[in-house]
Amino acid sequence: MSHGVSSGNARLVSRSAQGRPSCVSLGETACIGDGHFLLVAGPCAVESREQLLASARAARDAGAGALRGGAFKPRTSPYDFQGLGAEGLLLLAEAREATGLPIVTEVLDPRDMPLVAEYADVIQIGSRNTQNYPLLREAGHARRPVLLKRGMSMTIREWLCAAEYIVSEGNSEVILCERGIRTFETATRHTLDLNAIPVLKALTHLPVMVDPSHGTGHAAYVPSMAKAAVAAGADGLLIEIHPDPRHALSDGAQSLDFPTFARLAHDIAHLRATLAPQRVRASI
Amino acid sequence: MSHGVSSGNARLVSRSAQGRPSCVSLGETACIGDGHFLLVAGPCAVESREQLLASARAARDAGAGALRGGAFKPRTSPYDFQGLGAEGLLLLAEAREATGLPIVTEVLDPRDMPLVAEYADVIQIGSRNTQNYPLLREAGHARRPVLLKRGMSMTIREWLCAAEYIVSEGNSEVILCERGIRTFETATRHTLDLNAIPVLKALTHLPVMVDPSHGTGHAAYVPSMAKAAVAAGADGLLIEIHPDPRHALSDGAQSLDFPTFARLAHDIAHLRATLAPQRVRASI
Amino acid sequence: MSHGVSSGNARLVSRSAQGRPSCVSLGETACIGDGHFLLVAGPCAVESREQLLASARAARDAGAGALRGGAFKPRTSPYDFQGLGAEGLLLLAEAREATGLPIVTEVLDPRDMPLVAEYADVIQIGSRNTQNYPLLREAGHARRPVLLKRGMSMTIREWLCAAEYIVSEGNSEVILCERGIRTFETATRHTLDLNAIPVLKALTHLPVMVDPSHGTGHAAYVPSMAKAAVAAGADGLLIEIHPDPRHALSDGAQSLDFPTFARLAHDIAHLRATLAPQRVRASI
Amino acid sequence: MSHGVSSGNARLVSRSAQGRPSCVSLGETACIGDGHFLLVAGPCAVESREQLLASARAARDAGAGALRGGAFKPRTSPYDFQGLGAEGLLLLAEAREATGLPIVTEVLDPRDMPLVAEYADVIQIGSRNTQNYPLLREAGHARRPVLLKRGMSMTIREWLCAAEYIVSEGNSEVILCERGIRTFETATRHTLDLNAIPVLKALTHLPVMVDPSHGTGHAAYVPSMAKAAVAAGADGLLIEIHPDPRHALSDGAQSLDFPTFARLAHDIAHLRATLAPQRVRASI
Repeated sequence: MSHGVSSGNARLVSRSAQGRPSCVSLGETACIGDGHFLLVAGPCAVESREQLLASARAARDAGAGALRGGAFKPRTSPYDFQGLGAEGLLLLAEAREATGLPIVTEVLDPRDMPLVAEYADVIQIGSRNTQNYPLLREAGHARRPVLLKRGMSMTIREWLCAAEYIVSEGNSEVILCERGIRTFETATRHTLDLNAIPVLKALTHLPVMVDPSHGTGHAAYVPSMAKAAVAAGADGLLIEIHPDPRHALSDGAQSLDFPTFARLAHDIAHLRATLAPQRVRASI
Repeated sequence: MSHGVSSGNARLVSRSAQGRPSCVSLGETACIGDGHFLLVAGPCAVESREQLLASARAARDAGAGALRGGAFKPRTSPYDFQGLGAEGLLLLAEAREATGLPIVTEVLDPRDMPLVAEYADVIQIGSRNTQNYPLLREAGHARRPVLLKRGMSMTIREWLCAAEYIVSEGNSEVILCERGIRTFETATRHTLDLNAIPVLKALTHLPVMVDPSHGTGHAAYVPSMAKAAVAAGADGLLIEIHPDPRHALSDGAQSLDFPTFARLAHDIAHLRATLAPQRVRASI
Repeated sequence: MSHGVSSGNARLVSRSAQGRPSCVSLGETACIGDGHFLLVAGPCAVESREQLLASARAARDAGAGALRGGAFKPRTSPYDFQGLGAEGLLLLAEAREATGLPIVTEVLDPRDMPLVAEYADVIQIGSRNTQNYPLLREAGHARRPVLLKRGMSMTIREWLCAAEYIVSEGNSEVILCERGIRTFETATRHTLDLNAIPVLKALTHLPVMVDPSHGTGHAAYVPSMAKAAVAAGADGLLIEIHPDPRHALSDGAQSLDFPTFARLAHDIAHLRATLAPQRVRASI
Repeated sequence: MSHGVSSGNARLVSRSAQGRPSCVSLGETACIGDGHFLLVAGPCAVESREQLLASARAARDAGAGALRGGAFKPRTSPYDFQGLGAEGLLLLAEAREATGLPIVTEVLDPRDMPLVAEYADVIQIGSRNTQNYPLLREAGHARRPVLLKRGMSMTIREWLCAAEYIVSEGNSEVILCERGIRTFETATRHTLDLNAIPVLKALTHLPVMVDPSHGTGHAAYVPSMAKAAVAAGADGLLIEIHPDPRHALSDGAQSLDFPTFARLAHDIAHLRATLAPQRVRASI
């Protein structure tokens, strides 16, 4: 192919490394990739038992397949809320118990990997840590799937190399998640780069998710970009929801309230059903 | 609204300037905006009578509502093919005659505006000229709709100000067209910024098109991004097609061949039909 | 050379096209390039006879070799001050008469080229018009040197191609002027890219100027960046000054008052004297 | 102040937090800030005893005040040379013994902080880890000065917040180092943002260094940009040198050979001497 990028040194994750796209399992109930779509929703940060359980139920009721929530939060300022830490992990486990949803949560410190892996069904590595190689290596030894976000100024080739760090350590269960890149435009918090979806589909067998919440930074733009991501071929979505977005401790401006999320989940299911026949034809 | 941008000085084009979205008519057969979708296709440059007529027929047969083709080409190097000029306009008129499709073609020089306006149904102002104010003012005096592309490093606010130049001179028939912005990513030719769609929908009443051909620079990525644009709410698409992309005089790498375009046009019609009920509900 | 860029199609302007760097003359008193340094100062826009004459005298008294001032102003919004037009050109001619300084002024419209070339000693093509090819071609026919700014998202290779448009039409008197590019950083108005200086010195024989006023957007940062540009090997500087920056009709925040400019001009002369022996050694 | 940025939440590092600029000491022989300039040189990676000792002697003989060298290397691909690790630290200590130069070396993993702090005089945190908060916190507990590079897509405000993480944990000895940001330009590896120097001088009391080797990615451009950084007011430079750049295991294209570095060090000393009186005047 004459595309503008090759997967370069990222051999194990390259499209040519295996016969068909990967499918990554989360817990016993959900999977993503190779035709399986996954909708993940939840609050940016775990703030309290009530907030998390309400969000988990709203996610489940709307049809989400997994729950997201941050216990360890990477914040630009040291004076901002840093997450509930280990207590947040306990609350996430309780929410899983209550709803049956597998949980996705972020790890920041390689020393916390065993603790996080004990509670999480999927370990998230955030955009600030995508070239934190000790953390990537630890994730390569964890017995959990890894959701690897794109760095804010990371090329797609560099992103695949970051995934290769994890896979080359022995963990082939990696999900890539586009979440917006840094550009000159200020109307959105970041520029969600949906082009990454077809580029990644050409270069790697790994499943591709999209996070329109961080990618736009504004709740009003999330539904449009979520549907666009699905139409472009994304294998999943990661969406922030909150019972009361205006009072969220972090990223409230980009969180959907529950009714808006329920409508979006419905629209996405409808859109997916429409696109399905095209997929079938495409794969013949 | 608490979005990251306001329309600022762009009063006449702002969402609040009129009760409902604008609908812009092209010739007597087509229109775009306020629920009307427009698919425009054609070659990057008019190369010959045969190439253009074949492209026009392929566009019409696949269901496109207008034909694009460049007679005056803005090329980075002075030694590259610069277009057929006035002869290209004659060929475009012939293609319109043959197919019934209204034509969209670019003007580079304010002195050419009367000539181009005589032949074109829609005057295109390209990404290199979006802050060429004498050209914008001339377009404001032309009695033709104007398709205004986004500049490569233009913020959305600046783009709306460029549209305001045209509208404030008396021509309110402006269509905005996202075509990719400059970022650090090199896997795609530009970064097609689909976020611009919901942002523009919140800020302006003007119709919004997307050009996934320039936006990605690779034919293989065009169908995914075209569908994504539709799902995000675009009012139209501008797509490059060529009877023999490998031998195109400009931008062959991003042009679709005719069968691929026909499949894409079919998929888009199907997708549009699916999304329609959602639109209706949204506007209640 | 194994640099990250070649001059590509830009043959006539390439370093290898002639034996030594070009020297461009302005009027009868000034020149730039091949060891000759030029300091250009003046207001962003010509606002009035008093404002311009005061600025011209302050420029001359501080040691500037030419006067800048905009009669035709490219403004983002159609409702902002657009310059005095032809009247501004008359005032510039009067300021030249009064001070002996050659004048640099911008042209926006190819139809204005004869008028502007009649008054200007150097024709400026601004950052919004660096890929306005009809304007570049007209500049190629003008019998005046051309100061070609870099576009806001223009690669150095594209910039050289824009210069090639002018030179290939017969006008070899082109001066390049770096003025900042679009990036994600918002602490400065643009990111002044001083790297362009050594890159251009390796690729082209044309003289290279720097505009730290637009490049930073803040008067407080102009002196540091002006000195940095000189240390990096720039052949000249373009600096905005105003008798009363707080009340300027455009770009006041980035304009120096006269005493600050006089100190900066003195520091630059001192720095130039220091660097001279290094230059001599380098050219042996 | 009416600058485009404030130091925001970065209180302890803000300009207003103390009466005069900070001076940070390295070992017993060197310091940087508040008028003290520091030239740091050495190889990108410690490759061997011979390579490091030769580089250390060349650095010292040319007048450098400290030696840099990477033992733990953050590499984009997992299959590239990752550094000598603990063995590299021993070699760095030997080079310090041989030359008297304090050593600057990078730490990637919070678990390695005690080991690195035992050998290093200055702990470097690289551009990929500037928002690796556990690592920043560990650096805040280390009893060594910290050289904090700017992230590739980090705004200046975010950079100051990263420094605040270190200082708020109790370590006030932080040096900031600009090393280039991600932009669309490909002629240089990154775009070295010298504007950051005057912006930082307005916002923080911390010393500011510049790394023109990473910032440009090409040895041919390093001398120009090093001098520009000094003229813009940088407190120090970090420059990569290698006995045989063409055979370096990492970043050879941007490393200076020893004679070129010696000439540059001489030119910088000369430039510094010239600029000194201006500084004195400025501080009156």
